[in-house]
Amino acid sequence: MAIRYTSSNCAVLLEDLRVRSPLVQCITNAVVTNFTANVLLSVGAAPAMVDIPEEAGQFASVASGVLINLGTPRHEQRAAMLEAAAAANAAETPWVLDPVAIGSLTVRTELAHQLVGLRPRIIRGNASEILALAGVGTGGRGVDSTNNPLDALEAARHLAASFSSTVAVSGAVDLLVGPDGEATGMANGHSLLTRVTGGGCALGAVMAAFASLTDDPLLAATAATGVYTLAAEQAAARAQGPGSFAVEFLDRLAGITTDDVVAGLNLRPVGTLDSIQ
Amino acid sequence: MAIRYTSSNCAVLLEDLRVRSPLVQCITNAVVTNFTANVLLSVGAAPAMVDIPEEAGQFASVASGVLINLGTPRHEQRAAMLEAAAAANAAETPWVLDPVAIGSLTVRTELAHQLVGLRPRIIRGNASEILALAGVGTGGRGVDSTNNPLDALEAARHLAASFSSTVAVSGAVDLLVGPDGEATGMANGHSLLTRVTGGGCALGAVMAAFASLTDDPLLAATAATGVYTLAAEQAAARAQGPGSFAVEFLDRLAGITTDDVVAGLNLRPVGTLDSIQ
Amino acid sequence: MAIRYTSSNCAVLLEDLRVRSPLVQCITNAVVTNFTANVLLSVGAAPAMVDIPEEAGQFASVASGVLINLGTPRHEQRAAMLEAAAAANAAETPWVLDPVAIGSLTVRTELAHQLVGLRPRIIRGNASEILALAGVGTGGRGVDSTNNPLDALEAARHLAASFSSTVAVSGAVDLLVGPDGEATGMANGHSLLTRVTGGGCALGAVMAAFASLTDDPLLAATAATGVYTLAAEQAAARAQGPGSFAVEFLDRLAGITTDDVVAGLNLRPVGTLDSIQ
Repeated sequence: MAIRYTSSNCAVLLEDLRVRSPLVQCITNAVVTNFTANVLLSVGAAPAMVDIPEEAGQFASVASGVLINLGTPRHEQRAAMLEAAAAANAAETPWVLDPVAIGSLTVRTELAHQLVGLRPRIIRGNASEILALAGVGTGGRGVDSTNNPLDALEAARHLAASFSSTVAVSGAVDLLVGPDGEATGMANGHSLLTRVTGGGCALGAVMAAFASLTDDPLLAATAATGVYTLAAEQAAARAQGPGSFAVEFLDRLAGITTDDVVAGLNLRPVGTLDSIQ
Repeated sequence: MAIRYTSSNCAVLLEDLRVRSPLVQCITNAVVTNFTANVLLSVGAAPAMVDIPEEAGQFASVASGVLINLGTPRHEQRAAMLEAAAAANAAETPWVLDPVAIGSLTVRTELAHQLVGLRPRIIRGNASEILALAGVGTGGRGVDSTNNPLDALEAARHLAASFSSTVAVSGAVDLLVGPDGEATGMANGHSLLTRVTGGGCALGAVMAAFASLTDDPLLAATAATGVYTLAAEQAAARAQGPGSFAVEFLDRLAGITTDDVVAGLNLRPVGTLDSIQ
Repeated sequence: MAIRYTSSNCAVLLEDLRVRSPLVQCITNAVVTNFTANVLLSVGAAPAMVDIPEEAGQFASVASGVLINLGTPRHEQRAAMLEAAAAANAAETPWVLDPVAIGSLTVRTELAHQLVGLRPRIIRGNASEILALAGVGTGGRGVDSTNNPLDALEAARHLAASFSSTVAVSGAVDLLVGPDGEATGMANGHSLLTRVTGGGCALGAVMAAFASLTDDPLLAATAATGVYTLAAEQAAARAQGPGSFAVEFLDRLAGITTDDVVAGLNLRPVGTLDSIQ
């Protein structure tokens, strides 16, 4: 099967993001709020962490995109998440669900199943989380993925079809699956991204930013993943370790050019991914 | 109208801050707690994020200064804010109100109006927030200012007179308005400060630190803004992007000298600000 | 009295940590969650900030180690802490108690006394906090220690004996006290560690990681302190200020070698510490 998008399609969307600076509401976990906001600011979006009941729904109806991340789902946040998802749907605002560490932890797992029923535009997770959300497996060791993204391909297609969502599975290679089951791989990124907390979570916020720019959520998820993982490669080339990597990564998200994206994205048919694991 | 303070007045206060290391209680939003604490430590103050009911009032009565920032006002924090403001007033501890993103978000807007009635020593916000607090306009897009600071000059004077507060309006130029309506401008800073989350919020904490050193809150707000924005200029000259800017900024807050402040502050009569927007 | 452990014992444990990558649950304060997670990732452990009721107990029974830090003890976190401590005890998972800023703040002080009764494997604090937990003194200025670690030696021995815990007192020199009263000093570290928020808090998480690797919590606390403070020395040698120090520190935690640890740790009999204060 051919690849639906080119790196040029992704580059155009990055340019659009920088012109329009979408306002992204993040209801996300306590560990990564700061990093997520800085990632959004660096890439050219405007973050707003409005996550309390009453306000979360008010804001979702005016935001460009919404991220709902289940990393530390306190009582008030849980109510805010449901409110924001409903308001986003009512306003046709795209929203992204990141079912962090679901599986054996009961509160977030039940909430994730409730939220996915509200049909997020994009679902983003590692293989363990996608398997758990599809009802296969019991999740990984907290936020670590114990699975190869390709192991979650069928689960991703099942979720995509069930909820008319685009599903992004993060890992050593990234897998992007559209509502029609169309799947593409991307072989960019760097392992240092797993040594910085929020490396995956902030990508969900960037997906929400890109999803606000186009009616095609698969293109949005692909472009977001491409820009993000390519900036990680550029940052890793300059870093001395996880600390300097995080700093360089923010610099590169701000500095990455559309030419970099056109030249650097490594989009791959799914059938060729096994060989580069 | 002449400028009331010189850069030398500000430099003296910076020296004093480093000698006395004021203890600043911050009840602030989840996105910027870490950055705010690091900003305070870098400039020479001692942060303490005591923000739960019962303890917030206990601590406000012994702190040197208090910041109340409405960025993510969870239920417990809202109670803690009211408690801390009352305790700070009882102890004559200066406190700063930062009405983040008020306007159309109902919970924080109502709370901001309640808190301003308790007469904060300093009110700090962008033009949109100052306009909304004064009952003019409905706020900006989340934390973004959609207004020129000068557009909020009359609103700032109205707030200052109504609540005997000093009002600081942040933007491309900063505006400082005393309780008597006296207004000064400052044309320091760098746009990279808007690409790091907490760039404005942490300034509120630095104002609380400076306010603990003097009976003159307008001088405190002016000195805090000057030291902060000048350190941002120094950091921008060394940075490669938003990530390295944040790192350099902390280094420069620790390294900035009183000589730098004397030489670098660009205090300006309000009437001259229009030309440098 | 001789020193029980050598720097080689500590180096072996660091190597073990990197092989086994222990899963460390952190129920910690809002200011330092991000930094704590990044410290754990850098040193080679896997962080998980599971801190809500119901899930906290579920997770503590599968985690390798648990940190309970009282820095911002919101209502839900307090319940989660008690649940996690009980589940950790039931599963014989080692847990670390960090009684941040206890003394005059009533909520956390009462909670700390309740938690210490559940017999943490390791108690970590500055001198003020250890004195307050032992019922001597009323704590310091927030998170600042106002006391010399040696002033807390008897209090640490009292706590250690009462709760069969290892007690680590942080300061210009660090003091490690085993359940049998055995005490060792360590004279590594750098004052820049006190200019970065979470400098002490994240050490508690690293202790939980090391405690999961050995049945000897005094060795775990010693090795954790040694690796941590030696990485701080290395980072300080490359830093320009508190901002770049934090970045270098994460890089050094990832890069520090077992040879560095063997050569660099400055373990000292307690009787010799007075001279190097």
